[in-house]
Amino acid sequence: MSDPNSKSSAPGAPASLLRLLNAGHGTIPEAMTARTALTPDRPFLHWERHTWTYREAVAMAHGVGGYFRKMTTPDRPRVATFLGNCPEAMWTWLGAMFSGKVLVPINRKHRGTLLADMLSRSGASLLVTDATALNEIAPELLAAFEAVVIVGDLPVEPTPSMKWERIAPFQEAQCDGMSRWAPIRSSDVACVMFTSGTTGRSKAVPILHNQYVRGAARLVDAYQLTADDVFHNWLPLFHLAGQLHMTMTAILCGGAVALQPTFSVSRFWEEIELHGCSVLCGFASILHFIESLPPRVQDAASSLRVGIFAGIPPTLHDRFERRFGMRLDENYGMTEIDPITYPEPGVEPPEASCGRPSADVELAIVDDNDQLLPAGQLGEIVVRPRAPDVLTPGYDGDERASMRTFRNLWFHTGDFGALDDRGFLYFKGRAEHYIRRRGENVSVAELEAIILTHTAISECAAVGVASELGEEDIKIVVALHPGCTISAAELWDYAAARMAAFMRPRYIEFVGQLPRGELGKVRISDLRQLSERTWGADIR
Amino acid sequence: MSDPNSKSSAPGAPASLLRLLNAGHGTIPEAMTARTALTPDRPFLHWERHTWTYREAVAMAHGVGGYFRKMTTPDRPRVATFLGNCPEAMWTWLGAMFSGKVLVPINRKHRGTLLADMLSRSGASLLVTDATALNEIAPELLAAFEAVVIVGDLPVEPTPSMKWERIAPFQEAQCDGMSRWAPIRSSDVACVMFTSGTTGRSKAVPILHNQYVRGAARLVDAYQLTADDVFHNWLPLFHLAGQLHMTMTAILCGGAVALQPTFSVSRFWEEIELHGCSVLCGFASILHFIESLPPRVQDAASSLRVGIFAGIPPTLHDRFERRFGMRLDENYGMTEIDPITYPEPGVEPPEASCGRPSADVELAIVDDNDQLLPAGQLGEIVVRPRAPDVLTPGYDGDERASMRTFRNLWFHTGDFGALDDRGFLYFKGRAEHYIRRRGENVSVAELEAIILTHTAISECAAVGVASELGEEDIKIVVALHPGCTISAAELWDYAAARMAAFMRPRYIEFVGQLPRGELGKVRISDLRQLSERTWGADIR
Repeated sequence: MSDPNSKSSAPGAPASLLRLLNAGHGTIPEAMTARTALTPDRPFLHWERHTWTYREAVAMAHGVGGYFRKMTTPDRPRVATFLGNCPEAMWTWLGAMFSGKVLVPINRKHRGTLLADMLSRSGASLLVTDATALNEIAPELLAAFEAVVIVGDLPVEPTPSMKWERIAPFQEAQCDGMSRWAPIRSSDVACVMFTSGTTGRSKAVPILHNQYVRGAARLVDAYQLTADDVFHNWLPLFHLAGQLHMTMTAILCGGAVALQPTFSVSRFWEEIELHGCSVLCGFASILHFIESLPPRVQDAASSLRVGIFAGIPPTLHDRFERRFGMRLDENYGMTEIDPITYPEPGVEPPEASCGRPSADVELAIVDDNDQLLPAGQLGEIVVRPRAPDVLTPGYDGDERASMRTFRNLWFHTGDFGALDDRGFLYFKGRAEHYIRRRGENVSVAELEAIILTHTAISECAAVGVASELGEEDIKIVVALHPGCTISAAELWDYAAARMAAFMRPRYIEFVGQLPRGELGKVRISDLRQLSERTWGADIR
Repeated sequence: MSDPNSKSSAPGAPASLLRLLNAGHGTIPEAMTARTALTPDRPFLHWERHTWTYREAVAMAHGVGGYFRKMTTPDRPRVATFLGNCPEAMWTWLGAMFSGKVLVPINRKHRGTLLADMLSRSGASLLVTDATALNEIAPELLAAFEAVVIVGDLPVEPTPSMKWERIAPFQEAQCDGMSRWAPIRSSDVACVMFTSGTTGRSKAVPILHNQYVRGAARLVDAYQLTADDVFHNWLPLFHLAGQLHMTMTAILCGGAVALQPTFSVSRFWEEIELHGCSVLCGFASILHFIESLPPRVQDAASSLRVGIFAGIPPTLHDRFERRFGMRLDENYGMTEIDPITYPEPGVEPPEASCGRPSADVELAIVDDNDQLLPAGQLGEIVVRPRAPDVLTPGYDGDERASMRTFRNLWFHTGDFGALDDRGFLYFKGRAEHYIRRRGENVSVAELEAIILTHTAISECAAVGVASELGEEDIKIVVALHPGCTISAAELWDYAAARMAAFMRPRYIEFVGQLPRGELGKVRISDLRQLSERTWGADIR
């Protein structure tokens, strides 16, 4: 018998959320309004040398929200953005939230068919972008919007498909106020965000108001963020980290956001010092960039205090903390549910772990059949919410993908990892980076690295091909350096001597070069086919 | 922090399943084959005075399965049945299972548009039915099947749409064998069953092989069923109880099924005594029917031993057990996941409880917002699987309904209930039978019962109407006995004196008679409208 009391007790609400809203859930406007009531004249947003207080920020959101309400119909209550970081991107987000609209922020770097696909899937009736973008978007897509709001300079002349009356400068959008806020609930969708999915079409992830508010509150509590913190937000506002980790957290604790157009190594210290930034967020590459800067005597005495990071290299961790006099702590999450793990105040996490599961999630490691695996074993990371409205309600317009991802009522992260016996999670990469063979998970990266130690090999890609015995057999596709030769049998012997039996490839194929897509990524799907050119080892 | 070890440990497999298959999961053919290997010559099926052993049953399944394999294409691997209980319904089910087909059993009582809808949604290329049914099914629907297999006498002449060559007698279907079984997995769909959903269109529920095998094993362990048990199976094989509770259980423990065409009070003792039936299954009404039979001296000494029931009236429970010398135990489940609760050997459940949650489910009670409720509070019963493949993977062709039912990664049963502080569940009826008002759940049945105590009232239906304050206001629609009069205000005073303030209706409407559908059910949706004829109480 299961013990329902131990399994199904509701987790406590985040302390910072209870303090702000006196509730365990909330909407973005509720949180922003409550914060503004407490500290209306504290800074909310820094951009270069401009600063907006909380009161001023709410006024901006109010103005833009009124325009959005006027210009959208209830049946198409969506606003798309195609913007880099700028104050207008912030007002657009908050304005959409205050007016009860759904924001669909599209990565400003997208181009061509992918951009067109996202714009047409957005379901938005308004687009907020810049004049340059008008040349990057197909005329028929632009024509589908009721209006296009332009941040910055207007184009010299309208595009063939957009008449002037449907192009509005952002200043115009800021002039309308709202008589009253939209009645929204914490379980309502706030944004729909496209995940860049490494395989297949991008998924459109609806994110609920409560995911922002409660998720940010968990981070505030975990990282012990305060009203004195200034968030160095170079992360794009069209990604969850820029919105949730570095803006909603500020709203929850009463801090300020120092918004940056992008991450700049050369301007890094200037940006940090301009507003006394104390919180950094990002990925390992940023840490390497910062470490590469010339040492300064004041490095350890900078205003930096907290780093909210993922994938911190263990070799760098302590060195970075000492040099910059700050604390770096791992967390783990994804657009669908964030945070999943985070640090605990006063608890030193084991090396290379990304903390323990959030109080709002139940986390497990499962095998290919969703059987739970014990501590120490590698498998897919799956989670379940322990409170309502902390997980996406499912992919927009793709219930089939949602059902697959939610099978057996676990959210399947698509990531591999393991738990230790104290419940700390160790992230081990995307599940698709593993080949499943005879009950073993073979890391593609590790396998390729071994093959590449052979001096004749210039490129290598390992893929799984369906095995008649179930699971997969391993195939490696290799290209040789010019002038080099090696037979498949010789390469197999070389590899076999250097790896566990379960890692040894069954198939080897030589190619002139690996097939790659537009962005230079190897087209894995092209490699799975077996042909006459495929050499087969006599192993099972 | 959640403790992943206590939350996510895998439940132990059912002992009876481990004994039979030496595994925690399985398919219906695996279970049947393993049982037959152990006791090939023990009786499996009794029908009137005929008996088939396990060995003979597998041969029948083998024969029918071969025919199904020959007659279906891999892209339409479904077999529909439209049959009452009969041995052929059993062979059709098992034959479909052994040949890796999916069975879509349709309630033989359906008629007209509902039947047509189910047949066309079934996706089946074969239909197994009886000659009478050919007149009940529209010709164009019949014509869509590759073949129609007729149990019993063939029709005198074929219907206009069915040529003779596409009508096969069941005997013909029994003649084909299979060279080898289909490679199926425990996570494969075995059947798709239509739930009779009291609101909206019937849902098509796929049920996995493992749901049958592991679910039945849980019941065998809970009710301590043995190879000596004979299951009095009057429950239709087109419902889950007839298949899972009363046939798969027999296969798991090695007992025999005494299949009955229907429940007959007059033949009850004759049927029980013919094969020495020991296990009964059903609902409260059956218990009342049996109790209504004249007392016999041998009542307490009958072969009956175990009753697997739902909704046993507490007033009847002990009296029935004493008179018939058997044990009655509640369980709770539904087509989508079964069992959800069951008795524990040696544990006396509290009166009116339906046992504690299965080891395979986590069960909670939630409010309208999916917030977990503490012990003692009434709310919706929600469950999560603790093992893979014990819950439907989602409604067939209706991912939208599935996502709704699976929101926040809980399976929402649509039933109301409460847990006590020892984890026992108390079932309180369908959620739709409650009106949600000012944080209170008002039972429609209780409210109507109070109104009906007034001698002028002949009929009463209570419904919730959306309130401007959120949740619902209560409206009652009443019909008067001929010649009686009462004003709305008088009725309101009468009711108010007899119920809690939160139960009092805000609206009262008089009608000549309640609007009813074809089957005599009150058309609730017709009653929600407020009109000039609606009297409104001055309450909020």
